[in-house]
Amino acid sequence: MNKLQVELGERSYPIYIGRQLISDSQFYTPHIRGSQVLVISNETVAPLYLGAVRHALSDYQLNEVILPDGEQFKTMDVLNHIFDGLLSHQHNRSTTLVALGGGVIGDMTGFAAACYQRGVDFIQVPTTLLSQVDSSVGGKTAVNHPLGKNMIGAFHQPRCVIADTDTLETLPDRELSAGLAEVIKYGLICDQAFYQWLAGNMESLLARNADALAYAIQVSCQNKADVVAEDEKESGIRAILNLGHTFGHAIEAHQGYGQWLHGEAVAAGMLMAADLSQRLGWLASSDVDALRSLLQQASLPVLGPANMDDDDYLSRMQVDKKVLDGQLRLVLLQSIGKALVTSDVPREQIIRTLSACRA
Amino acid sequence: MNKLQVELGERSYPIYIGRQLISDSQFYTPHIRGSQVLVISNETVAPLYLGAVRHALSDYQLNEVILPDGEQFKTMDVLNHIFDGLLSHQHNRSTTLVALGGGVIGDMTGFAAACYQRGVDFIQVPTTLLSQVDSSVGGKTAVNHPLGKNMIGAFHQPRCVIADTDTLETLPDRELSAGLAEVIKYGLICDQAFYQWLAGNMESLLARNADALAYAIQVSCQNKADVVAEDEKESGIRAILNLGHTFGHAIEAHQGYGQWLHGEAVAAGMLMAADLSQRLGWLASSDVDALRSLLQQASLPVLGPANMDDDDYLSRMQVDKKVLDGQLRLVLLQSIGKALVTSDVPREQIIRTLSACRA
Repeated sequence: MNKLQVELGERSYPIYIGRQLISDSQFYTPHIRGSQVLVISNETVAPLYLGAVRHALSDYQLNEVILPDGEQFKTMDVLNHIFDGLLSHQHNRSTTLVALGGGVIGDMTGFAAACYQRGVDFIQVPTTLLSQVDSSVGGKTAVNHPLGKNMIGAFHQPRCVIADTDTLETLPDRELSAGLAEVIKYGLICDQAFYQWLAGNMESLLARNADALAYAIQVSCQNKADVVAEDEKESGIRAILNLGHTFGHAIEAHQGYGQWLHGEAVAAGMLMAADLSQRLGWLASSDVDALRSLLQQASLPVLGPANMDDDDYLSRMQVDKKVLDGQLRLVLLQSIGKALVTSDVPREQIIRTLSACRA
Repeated sequence: MNKLQVELGERSYPIYIGRQLISDSQFYTPHIRGSQVLVISNETVAPLYLGAVRHALSDYQLNEVILPDGEQFKTMDVLNHIFDGLLSHQHNRSTTLVALGGGVIGDMTGFAAACYQRGVDFIQVPTTLLSQVDSSVGGKTAVNHPLGKNMIGAFHQPRCVIADTDTLETLPDRELSAGLAEVIKYGLICDQAFYQWLAGNMESLLARNADALAYAIQVSCQNKADVVAEDEKESGIRAILNLGHTFGHAIEAHQGYGQWLHGEAVAAGMLMAADLSQRLGWLASSDVDALRSLLQQASLPVLGPANMDDDDYLSRMQVDKKVLDGQLRLVLLQSIGKALVTSDVPREQIIRTLSACRA
C-alpha cells in the first residue's frame, strides 16, 4: 500500500493506493468522526463492492443509497435521493458519506456532503481509473445542468481517498481507456518524464498489469496533489488540470451526457489543444503526431464528432467556468510537459483547429 | 447611514443601514468585481423595489429572476430557476448575484451563489425586518427539504449587506411582528440592556418610528456580527443564535412551510425555551411572564399549535442540525441576556414544557 498526502493545511488528507483496501476498516475509521455512515453507490458498482464496504464499516450505523449508473444522472434531481436517504435515517452533522463508484458518484456524494446541513465529512472510494487519478482528488464536487457540465457544485475536500487497484479488474475496457486519457494529461501538462514512461508502457497498462497501473495512479495523484496544494480553489495554476476540458465539455454537452465518456471527450479535446498549440508555434507537428498515436494506442478518440459545427463548440465554450468577463481562456501546451493558460488565441485559429479535428 | 463591519478576515464585509440606500450605486459598486449582475427577487418585492435596483446598477449587464413569494418555495426546484437564469444569460465566475427580498430570497440567492460554478459573489438587499436583522447577516444560506428546514445549504458570506429601512414602510404588520421576534432574541441571548430598551420601546417599533427601527436593526446586527465573528461555522457559541429555533423549526415543518412565519414559530419557541429554563431553575417565573407579555405586545404567538403532540415535536427536533450523535442539544437561558447550549435536559422536562405551551 502506498500513501500520498494532499497538503491543504487543516483540510489535508491522505490518498491510499493499493490492493484489498476496500474491505479493510483501518483505512476508514481514523477518518470517521461520528457513529453514522451513508454509503452512496450505483447499480453497477454496488453488487461488486458494497459487501466489502459493509464488512469494513460494520461498527457504524450504516445506511445506503444506490443511484442509477451514468453521467446523465449527475443532476440535482438525483442528488436529492442522497438527501432523502440522509434525512429519512436521521443522519446528523457528524455523519460521514462514503462515495463508492466512479467520478459521477464521487462528484455527487462530495457535493451532497458539502451541502448537507451546510457541510459534513465524506470519504472517496473510487472504483474506476478515471476517478482514482482525477475526480476523487482535489475537492471539486458538482452536478450538471442542462446548459453546462459541473456548473453547480462546491469545493469540498474528502477526509481520505481509498484507491483500491483491485477494482480495476472489473472495469470495462472503454472505461479503462477513458481513465488513461487523464493519466496522459498529467504527463502532458507537467511531467515530461512520466509522458515518456507512458509512451513506453501503454501496452502493460492496457493489459492491466497491476504494478504498472499502481505506478501510473500514484504519479498521477502526486502530480494532481501538487497542483491542488498550490491553488486549491482554481484562481490560477490549477486551471492547467483542465487541458482538453473546454473542448471536451462542449462535446459532452452537445452529444448528451453519457454518450461520450468524459475521458473520451477529454482525449479529443487534448488533441485539439495540441493542434492549436502547434498552430501557435509552441509544439512541433511531430509532438502532435506522437500524442495522436499514443491516444489511438489507448483506444481513445482523436477527433470530435462529425455532427458538431464551430458554433456548437464556441457557444458552449463561452459558458466554460474559465471564462472571465466574456474572455475565453484556454489551457494549451508550451511544450510536452508544460501547460499554460491563455486568453490570447485568435478566433480564426480556434476555428482552424476545430475543422482539422472534426471526424 | 450607519455602517457596521462583520469581521471575518478576508471574508469581512460591511452592513449599511439607513434610508434611500437601494437606489444608490455607491453602496454596490465597490463590491462588484465583474460586469455581470443577476438580481433575484420575488413577485411581491420586485414591483416595489426592482426599479430602484435597476437604477443603481445601470452600468452592468443586468439580468433578473423573479421567484414566487413564500417559504414553501424555498426548494431545490425553485433554486434551479436561478441557475437557469445564470446559464441562459451566460454569467461567468466573476458575476455577482443580488438578493432583493426577505429571508427566503436571501437564503436561496446566497446558496445559489455558493454553488454556481463552485462559488460566486453575492450582495444582500434585505427588504423585511426579519432579514435585515437576521438572515442577511452571517453567511448561512440554505433551501428546505420536505423532511427538514434549511437542511441543504452552505456557509457563504455576502460581499455587503444593504439594509434600507425605507422598505419597512411597505411591510405587512404580520411580517413586522415576525421580525421583532428575532430582535427580541438578541436581547434575550446576549444583551440585557437592549432587552430592557425593547420592553420600553415596543410601541414606537410597532408604530414604525424610523429612528427606533434603525436603532433596533443596528444593535441586532452588531450583536449578530459579534457572535458570527467569534464562530463563523457554528462549532460553538454561534448556536445561541438559534434560541427558540429547535422548537420553532419543528412547528414550521409540521404545519407546512409558510403557514407559520419563521419569526412567529421562533417566538413560540423562545417562550418554550424560557419555560424550560425556568423549570431547570435558571429563570424566575416573573422573567417568563415578562417575556410572554413582550411577545404578546408585539402580536406574536406564545403557544405552539394545538394539533402538534409531543412526538410531532420530538421526532422533528431529532433531525435538528445541533444534534450530535443522537444527543438533542437545546439553546436555553441562564438568565435574561445570557444563553447557553446544553444537551443535559431530561426528556420529561421537555414534555412538560410542550404541554404547558400548547394552544
